[in-house]
Amino acid sequence: MSKTMLAVVKERPEPGITVKHIPIPETPKGEVKVKVIYGSICGTDIGIYDWIPWVQGHLKPPIVIGHEIVGEIIDINGDASHLKIGDIVSSETHIYDETCEQCKMGNQHVCDTVQFFGYGRDGGFAEYATIPIRTTWRNDPSIPLKEMSVQEPLGNAVHAVTKGDVSDKRVLVVGLGPVGMCAVAVANAYGAREVVAIDPELYRRELTEKFTNVTTLEKIDTKDFNRFHVVIEASGVPAGIQTSLDAVYPAGKIVAIGIPKKEITLDWGKYIIDKEITIESIFGRRIWETWHQTTDLLKSRKIDLQKIITHEFELKDFEEAMKIMKSGKCGKILLKINPPQI
Amino acid sequence: MSKTMLAVVKERPEPGITVKHIPIPETPKGEVKVKVIYGSICGTDIGIYDWIPWVQGHLKPPIVIGHEIVGEIIDINGDASHLKIGDIVSSETHIYDETCEQCKMGNQHVCDTVQFFGYGRDGGFAEYATIPIRTTWRNDPSIPLKEMSVQEPLGNAVHAVTKGDVSDKRVLVVGLGPVGMCAVAVANAYGAREVVAIDPELYRRELTEKFTNVTTLEKIDTKDFNRFHVVIEASGVPAGIQTSLDAVYPAGKIVAIGIPKKEITLDWGKYIIDKEITIESIFGRRIWETWHQTTDLLKSRKIDLQKIITHEFELKDFEEAMKIMKSGKCGKILLKINPPQI
Amino acid sequence: MSKTMLAVVKERPEPGITVKHIPIPETPKGEVKVKVIYGSICGTDIGIYDWIPWVQGHLKPPIVIGHEIVGEIIDINGDASHLKIGDIVSSETHIYDETCEQCKMGNQHVCDTVQFFGYGRDGGFAEYATIPIRTTWRNDPSIPLKEMSVQEPLGNAVHAVTKGDVSDKRVLVVGLGPVGMCAVAVANAYGAREVVAIDPELYRRELTEKFTNVTTLEKIDTKDFNRFHVVIEASGVPAGIQTSLDAVYPAGKIVAIGIPKKEITLDWGKYIIDKEITIESIFGRRIWETWHQTTDLLKSRKIDLQKIITHEFELKDFEEAMKIMKSGKCGKILLKINPPQI
Amino acid sequence: MSKTMLAVVKERPEPGITVKHIPIPETPKGEVKVKVIYGSICGTDIGIYDWIPWVQGHLKPPIVIGHEIVGEIIDINGDASHLKIGDIVSSETHIYDETCEQCKMGNQHVCDTVQFFGYGRDGGFAEYATIPIRTTWRNDPSIPLKEMSVQEPLGNAVHAVTKGDVSDKRVLVVGLGPVGMCAVAVANAYGAREVVAIDPELYRRELTEKFTNVTTLEKIDTKDFNRFHVVIEASGVPAGIQTSLDAVYPAGKIVAIGIPKKEITLDWGKYIIDKEITIESIFGRRIWETWHQTTDLLKSRKIDLQKIITHEFELKDFEEAMKIMKSGKCGKILLKINPPQI
Repeated sequence: MSKTMLAVVKERPEPGITVKHIPIPETPKGEVKVKVIYGSICGTDIGIYDWIPWVQGHLKPPIVIGHEIVGEIIDINGDASHLKIGDIVSSETHIYDETCEQCKMGNQHVCDTVQFFGYGRDGGFAEYATIPIRTTWRNDPSIPLKEMSVQEPLGNAVHAVTKGDVSDKRVLVVGLGPVGMCAVAVANAYGAREVVAIDPELYRRELTEKFTNVTTLEKIDTKDFNRFHVVIEASGVPAGIQTSLDAVYPAGKIVAIGIPKKEITLDWGKYIIDKEITIESIFGRRIWETWHQTTDLLKSRKIDLQKIITHEFELKDFEEAMKIMKSGKCGKILLKINPPQI
Repeated sequence: MSKTMLAVVKERPEPGITVKHIPIPETPKGEVKVKVIYGSICGTDIGIYDWIPWVQGHLKPPIVIGHEIVGEIIDINGDASHLKIGDIVSSETHIYDETCEQCKMGNQHVCDTVQFFGYGRDGGFAEYATIPIRTTWRNDPSIPLKEMSVQEPLGNAVHAVTKGDVSDKRVLVVGLGPVGMCAVAVANAYGAREVVAIDPELYRRELTEKFTNVTTLEKIDTKDFNRFHVVIEASGVPAGIQTSLDAVYPAGKIVAIGIPKKEITLDWGKYIIDKEITIESIFGRRIWETWHQTTDLLKSRKIDLQKIITHEFELKDFEEAMKIMKSGKCGKILLKINPPQI
Repeated sequence: MSKTMLAVVKERPEPGITVKHIPIPETPKGEVKVKVIYGSICGTDIGIYDWIPWVQGHLKPPIVIGHEIVGEIIDINGDASHLKIGDIVSSETHIYDETCEQCKMGNQHVCDTVQFFGYGRDGGFAEYATIPIRTTWRNDPSIPLKEMSVQEPLGNAVHAVTKGDVSDKRVLVVGLGPVGMCAVAVANAYGAREVVAIDPELYRRELTEKFTNVTTLEKIDTKDFNRFHVVIEASGVPAGIQTSLDAVYPAGKIVAIGIPKKEITLDWGKYIIDKEITIESIFGRRIWETWHQTTDLLKSRKIDLQKIITHEFELKDFEEAMKIMKSGKCGKILLKINPPQI
Repeated sequence: MSKTMLAVVKERPEPGITVKHIPIPETPKGEVKVKVIYGSICGTDIGIYDWIPWVQGHLKPPIVIGHEIVGEIIDINGDASHLKIGDIVSSETHIYDETCEQCKMGNQHVCDTVQFFGYGRDGGFAEYATIPIRTTWRNDPSIPLKEMSVQEPLGNAVHAVTKGDVSDKRVLVVGLGPVGMCAVAVANAYGAREVVAIDPELYRRELTEKFTNVTTLEKIDTKDFNRFHVVIEASGVPAGIQTSLDAVYPAGKIVAIGIPKKEITLDWGKYIIDKEITIESIFGRRIWETWHQTTDLLKSRKIDLQKIITHEFELKDFEEAMKIMKSGKCGKILLKINPPQI
């Protein structure tokens, strides 16, 4: 195999990205090397591109970015009884240490020393990538290849909706980016009594309605204030958080996924105290509970993730893909890196 | 009996209070009349005195204020199979309607049409008061009379600590007003692994240490950031809320009781998302679960509430009592209204 | 109106039943009188007919039996702000006292002094019946009248499936009497990952498959042992309980609804300890949480209860209806008592 | 070091045990070798000695028995970043595979292929033992050495009491073997409202009262039926299970730890259905949540495990130790294998 590969690299602590050839990595001890098949672009990748404050606190250039991928194992360096050459795998983004109190208590995703695949260290928008053995997930072969790449954000939605405990509840989803869209579909699958979804962007509302059974609105009316047992806040913008506080039923719950770009101001007394609400939040996925749940949704075809893949690009055209991402006129964007030859 | 009585009245929508004689009320249908024995002053009563925005949204003058009381039933107008003349009772502050969805679901304290004894309608800082039969609590006679008055704020602490699920957890209590002090004592009783409590006011720290087993600090050190599984936020000030966000362990929980006077600004992404915390809040008490729990703590003498009663005043001296309340140099202040003759 | 009415009476402590004319009851203080429209026969009514030991411990003849009914209020004796003449109502079977510890803690259905409508006191298989105001449920008028009668057993299923927490779980329902059939439909509505149902009786399996989306089996295969996160045990027979213990996944849960006629023998060490399972059980319904949930399922038409009503009889033909009940070749049997005139 | 060592061996599928010299084991790949310091005898070891049916289903002779131990690491064969030569460690008894659905879901203790240290494979009643790296627990050095051996059964009690959720509850512990005694102490530490403990054996009641704060009884009176929110069933005998069913408050919970020697007969309808109770059970400990909890109880000295160690024997005197075990007149029995030289 050649000695270099094409990769999407965050080279400098400033806005922008570089697509360039770099050396193919060796497989470090305790990791596997994969030939990456597909990648998909996450909202976090926009933040990396734009070099927003939250990213500045996590990412040290230069690194290969990209954390939603599927690839084939071509090398294993270490004990990996459950993996073998040729396995089709994805990567859990949160790399945990297995030894801290959080890991020992079963909360690996908030590990005391957690590192992030694709922004705390080299990720997977490249022809080849290496992944720690312990964060390598062997995909169920019955799931379509393209969906294997996109399952990681589905995982965020699964984790959020699971925390929401939506069965028999009136549910509102605020913000219809890919995670919000997935949250609607998961809430349906998990037995919500009723699901309403809002987004100011018509494109996204229409895409969501094609993806899953839901009525979408531009915004909720004041008559719907205090009506939803569970609100999934997936917008990350101040107006979305305010809507969530208004919409949630007293003694109800908001599950927060969206990450605001700056501080939020809210009326703690009026909403949090007087309504006796619960705010829960989502940081990644449960390892590995969420992955099992996600696999089931995809295997059973309760969710057809391909419906939210609206664009596909070659890796070399990453800048163009990013432009579409930022327009908001898209669902999930897939990167064809080493796609199967038909 | 005479036709008038002394009462503490909020007469006008502006700062201040009036202590004056008014007619003794008739007993409305569905209520009991009590001869009030003791009352105790709540932080909310300061807000009523100062006419803060939160109170302006709840209270329509003129009304008799006061919601923490104990009294003797002297009249019953309606069906009250579990009550009789001579019973020593207290009042649940949240007057629920029994028929809305929240009530039917067991959440009477956030009843859709909830009214408040002592700020949504006439309360109990008066020689006589009337209380709805359904919010009248018959006290266990083995509990000291003065504690019967102060048990309502203990109830807030019990509800908060119960939601915190503190058994075997590292617990931080932020703010040592009476509810915070009680939260420390309840956390000890309910099996917290370790309790730390902070308040800038030396007087309150010392009082708390006399009341229950705890080490108190002026504030926590950065080395204690991310260390507490449960934080009880009982200060209601921005610095206290910020400390709670810093101190809570990732995947941990903040239980909010303190009511800020204005809006709060916080870094939603850094704290709520990245730490995957839960924020729960407290609005009153569970009806009647909390009252049963409170009764048990007082009957068993696991908690000796008299230790936090630092001052006693006659009803006519309410203004003076309010001055002490506002100084912060006090625990709970008792009003002797019709105290027992020895 | 005439002075007597037709009623189904358990007259003596021995097998059998009597259909006869008895005086129309006066409305006691605190109760409403209804003109009964429909009733439906419960498995417990078979036990009453057969005078099984469990019934002998609960029922003191003579009483009017029947607890699943719908009727129209024709008289109110007491405070009933949420009810009025003409309301179409049903009765919660568990008559609670509102004052015991269980009631105060929100567990009215296991009230310390609970009495039962239709077996602890006169019930509703009669032209007229009286119901305590506090256990009278005003039906949502959009629900079909016949379903209002049958909603009480649906409530058992709702309570069981809610306790099962079936969202995203593999669920097995054992026993397809009306409650078991309803449990299948509710598990589907509440987001079970997969539902399997078993019953030896072909008639019931076919009826269940017409009623809701499920694959039914005569019994499970050994390869399905240890496979179900949640088992709803609705058969009440030793073989069904044994199947439940075999089928439940380790660390999973059995929810028991079926009432065996005699003692059960089981291998506590092999199943309960080694598999670390949870056994929960159902006694009636949550008051009123379950009724709200049931109403939603019927209003939204997620469940069409009319599909399980397989037979209709006049009240005078109760003996014949009971014969069909005992044959097992039926779903729910409706009694037309004062059906609407078309 | 010599080539052989003294060990307690179950040689044949029949009652009895052999203490003999056998070769010192090599350290298999993925394991550590320890010089065993102390061991302690578990109730299961009596079952192994007596060759009871439950053991016959788990143990294939010949093996070295013993699963409660503390030792010093003298060899490591494999990756063990958190362990080093000289560490003082104990062994989790349940050896899990890390790859099955249960392990991936965080339930390693009920792993689909679980094996048991000391009865499914060689254990630790020997001068040397090997332990899988992944089930090796590094002890906190501040805990007394003898307690490190006895912490494994404390772990069972911690897991049971944690499942019981005893904070603010009335708790009954049935059976005062070492696990039952520990359950009493843990229930106190975790904030039980009241703890009552019963055992027919005076010796054990007295030992429990010296160990922790509790009133013990020979048995409960009928007036205590239906009084306990939580019952910890640690006797494993039919009379203890019947007492648990009688004593538990309706809507309350029984946590089962004791393993009966044969099948149990119970009145499912009268107790499980009519009282709407929950039965949970305990199979080992949560890995590693329970170990963290146990460590905290011992470090904080809330529990002083040395108080329940009533006898100490040399390894060669195992038969004599077993005689005492079977008499019931003992707490925990310690085996001095390679005790520290003073």
